[in-house]
Amino acid sequence: MKTPASAWVVPPVQPLLIRDLLTRVRHWAGGQRIIYRDLREHSYAEFLARVDRLGRVLTDLGVKPGDRVGVLDCDSHRYLELFFAVPMLGAVLHTVNVRLTPEQIAYTIRHAADSVMLVHTDFLPLAAQLAPQLPDVQAWVALTDGALPADPGIALAGEYEALLAGVSSEFCFPDLDENTVATLFYTTGTTGEPKGVYFTHRQLVLHTLALGLNFSVHHDPLSLQCDDVYLPLTPMFHVHAWGFPYLATLLGLTQVYAGRFEPALLLRLIARHKVTISHGVPTVLQLLLNHPESAGVDLSNLKLVVGGAPLPAGLARQARARGIRLLSSYGMSETCPVVASAHPKPDRADTDAEADLEVCSRTGFPLPLVEAGIWSANGTLLPPGRDQIGELVLRAPWLTGGYHLDPVRSAELWRGGWLHTGDIAYRDLDGYVRITDRLKDVIKIGGEWISSLELENALSRHEAVKEVAVVGVPNAKWDERPHADVVLHPAHAGQVTPRELQKFLHGFIESGAIHQRAVLTEIRLVEAIPRTSVGKIDKKALRAALVAAAST
Amino acid sequence: MKTPASAWVVPPVQPLLIRDLLTRVRHWAGGQRIIYRDLREHSYAEFLARVDRLGRVLTDLGVKPGDRVGVLDCDSHRYLELFFAVPMLGAVLHTVNVRLTPEQIAYTIRHAADSVMLVHTDFLPLAAQLAPQLPDVQAWVALTDGALPADPGIALAGEYEALLAGVSSEFCFPDLDENTVATLFYTTGTTGEPKGVYFTHRQLVLHTLALGLNFSVHHDPLSLQCDDVYLPLTPMFHVHAWGFPYLATLLGLTQVYAGRFEPALLLRLIARHKVTISHGVPTVLQLLLNHPESAGVDLSNLKLVVGGAPLPAGLARQARARGIRLLSSYGMSETCPVVASAHPKPDRADTDAEADLEVCSRTGFPLPLVEAGIWSANGTLLPPGRDQIGELVLRAPWLTGGYHLDPVRSAELWRGGWLHTGDIAYRDLDGYVRITDRLKDVIKIGGEWISSLELENALSRHEAVKEVAVVGVPNAKWDERPHADVVLHPAHAGQVTPRELQKFLHGFIESGAIHQRAVLTEIRLVEAIPRTSVGKIDKKALRAALVAAAST
Repeated sequence: MKTPASAWVVPPVQPLLIRDLLTRVRHWAGGQRIIYRDLREHSYAEFLARVDRLGRVLTDLGVKPGDRVGVLDCDSHRYLELFFAVPMLGAVLHTVNVRLTPEQIAYTIRHAADSVMLVHTDFLPLAAQLAPQLPDVQAWVALTDGALPADPGIALAGEYEALLAGVSSEFCFPDLDENTVATLFYTTGTTGEPKGVYFTHRQLVLHTLALGLNFSVHHDPLSLQCDDVYLPLTPMFHVHAWGFPYLATLLGLTQVYAGRFEPALLLRLIARHKVTISHGVPTVLQLLLNHPESAGVDLSNLKLVVGGAPLPAGLARQARARGIRLLSSYGMSETCPVVASAHPKPDRADTDAEADLEVCSRTGFPLPLVEAGIWSANGTLLPPGRDQIGELVLRAPWLTGGYHLDPVRSAELWRGGWLHTGDIAYRDLDGYVRITDRLKDVIKIGGEWISSLELENALSRHEAVKEVAVVGVPNAKWDERPHADVVLHPAHAGQVTPRELQKFLHGFIESGAIHQRAVLTEIRLVEAIPRTSVGKIDKKALRAALVAAAST
Repeated sequence: MKTPASAWVVPPVQPLLIRDLLTRVRHWAGGQRIIYRDLREHSYAEFLARVDRLGRVLTDLGVKPGDRVGVLDCDSHRYLELFFAVPMLGAVLHTVNVRLTPEQIAYTIRHAADSVMLVHTDFLPLAAQLAPQLPDVQAWVALTDGALPADPGIALAGEYEALLAGVSSEFCFPDLDENTVATLFYTTGTTGEPKGVYFTHRQLVLHTLALGLNFSVHHDPLSLQCDDVYLPLTPMFHVHAWGFPYLATLLGLTQVYAGRFEPALLLRLIARHKVTISHGVPTVLQLLLNHPESAGVDLSNLKLVVGGAPLPAGLARQARARGIRLLSSYGMSETCPVVASAHPKPDRADTDAEADLEVCSRTGFPLPLVEAGIWSANGTLLPPGRDQIGELVLRAPWLTGGYHLDPVRSAELWRGGWLHTGDIAYRDLDGYVRITDRLKDVIKIGGEWISSLELENALSRHEAVKEVAVVGVPNAKWDERPHADVVLHPAHAGQVTPRELQKFLHGFIESGAIHQRAVLTEIRLVEAIPRTSVGKIDKKALRAALVAAAST
């Protein structure tokens, strides 16, 4: 009996949808609560009913699949409801970054073409100011913790709680394609207008699963578990609060949302609800530890994922001394965001506290399904090794497809089939990614990256040097050559020559602290270094002036 | 500046491929080993190189995308290599169930149209016997733990290790569509030929992620962690050893494969390698606990996922007394397999050991992304509740698309858009699935399911009853009516009437132990109950005879 060659019945592939992150918790979470500041708490059953009501309210406001719905709020139970209801309608949740300038905020809302805006009363004055510039917005909804202001300054379609109360909790969300865009938000670079990054249902579901597996399967230094109590220390408008609210909801954790940033309230919420898991940038950790009320709060049950910036060793030690279990992780707006975390390997030999802290503070080891490459200045992939430095590039099933309505910068982001992070890194011999610089801070010399920050650090250690800026200047032979503008301390003016500084720099090169090719550095003594309007060193202007000078 | 309506750059969606389960471990696993019996162990680096060599060997043997590659082996490091290399080529791994009859094995190999077969020397005699009936097989490869037999009885294309040694470890696996079929194996029902179920790359990757999250995020009663040592107690030919080898490899665990089932060797391997995580059916657990060498082995670090059959309370207590942490889980060949596990909820009130054991022995709570429904006899979905009994139906992104080359049974499996498990269950008020019967053992009376096993149990408690079989007989008014054939003990023959047995049964109905509609049960005294060739009660024949009698 010879059967024919393969004739698989390939099933209708079941899509990965944000809706399905709620399936399990309908029956799982009984006693777990969702809490907002010291103002409100409710059960998961109520949360689910509110998501259904919100689906009806948004539909009644005219939200259709593909529409953008903007939110101006800090971390809240309502934001969590919007995390689900908006994408589940097939619409796109635009999490507006309230920390941008009013101009930038208006730009992002116009660029996203948001048709409905939900605005916390704290931001109503801003909304009223911007509304005339936002022709696409059809309806404004107020989110309020108390009474609405007598004059909200803007024509409101309603207040969130009143709208929810006015509809039935029976609502059926539509079936969707898993590649439907679910979320959108804007990231600001050093130059140009804010760029919109966006994620699909499939991407967010996969990020949630990989995030959960990654943070629960290593008990050292911290393991996310199903009885944790969660409070984000990052804004929900910033890369979905790193994706943790989706995970916390999937797992049915008790969740605490703290509203606008108030360290004293945060500390009280952590203490009252026995918060065990959180995540945030080093600055927020520092604010919590140094707050006057901090000493009275037991933080010894807290597990904290740190990201957004390198974790300083001193801060890490201070946090550990309070009993906090800390772990570095890495990601960016374009990556959903988490792509790496600094879990120590289970078989490492060295396990004293300092060695452990060093590992846990690294950029991180790639998550499951994440492929990390080191992209050399020549566009080849480099092997592990401290001297194999290049741009960190990534592949993973949850990286943004590009920048919204910006095919040029999208193509640049994804050149060569990898997402280019703009971070300069190497992969250490244990396989951890180690970021050394931002791409804008490195100089390409003869096909190799040299850090301009390292050169600046070295030169600034000369007692005569008050200020220094190093940039790369195009060079036919070497791709680029480093150029240093140096301002001397007045006391040393006229007493130190560029040649002397060059010799000083060569000392670092000879000792191996700095790359050999740094010998090519040209040094110029100047009165002042160009600065931007906000007072930062303006390397772009410096480079442009040098290029112009060279071509005349 | 009005922007146009949405114009998302949807990225080329990054596929979910089995290949990507290996990305992380290339740099992660240093000291972890892959071990086979007491015969071999090697590093992950060697495992990865062997997978590459295997890709080359299979390609040289003519394996092309879409081809089926069959394996006759017990759990081994080589099987693990085949788990990866065959699907990564775009070919389909047919894990042949060596426990079927030779006839059935030949049927499955013909039905799959395997073109290359890899056969452990233990199964070479069987292969030699079957080869003449297998016209599609182009090449046979021997897997051997020692020397090849002088006369393998079959023309071999080579021996696995020799073939691997003969090629370069540089091999580039192709890019694939994520919906490419990766694995195929056959499941036997009570009737008909074995049915082939199959899974795609996407399904296996999603199952791996959800399995990992589910088993690591609950510390009670067990949490899979990245320093675990893994040994499967289920065959790799049976539903990919429940998918755990893919997960163990993704996480870089030390893995131990035990070859053919030998309890003494298993116990020695568990002791020597300090195995911490395993999974198996209750029978295997029983064999291990009751083996003469068992008492000398410390099992107190073992975490064991139990499935395939209900976990008897006595066995669970015995295992717990040895320090084993036990957890029930549920799945079937058609479901990849794991769809539920009996983790206790973190907020449950009752936590004494017996209550805990009762929870951990339930069928289970659905995994993330799994939707479980209770399908009533009328084709509606039932709410939770002990009396809301129906067929367990499932949706999840990793359920088989159907039965290979069998559109009729595929459509039956997936009727109404749900996978029909054939298990009768209810959802308890905590949301756990509780299986009560197989579908074939229930009777549909007036739109409700009644368990034939419950009726049999009740009648068998009458002192005169030696044997009883209950089946449903089609009935115009009631859908079906229960019919009981009863054989009396010789001592009671002629002294008990059907009417008396009926009154006895009514006692159970009145006390609420059995469904009201069981009053419709017809009882017949017979000399013997029809049996199958292997001595099981033949309900099919009984039902057929009753239908035939009714229609004459």
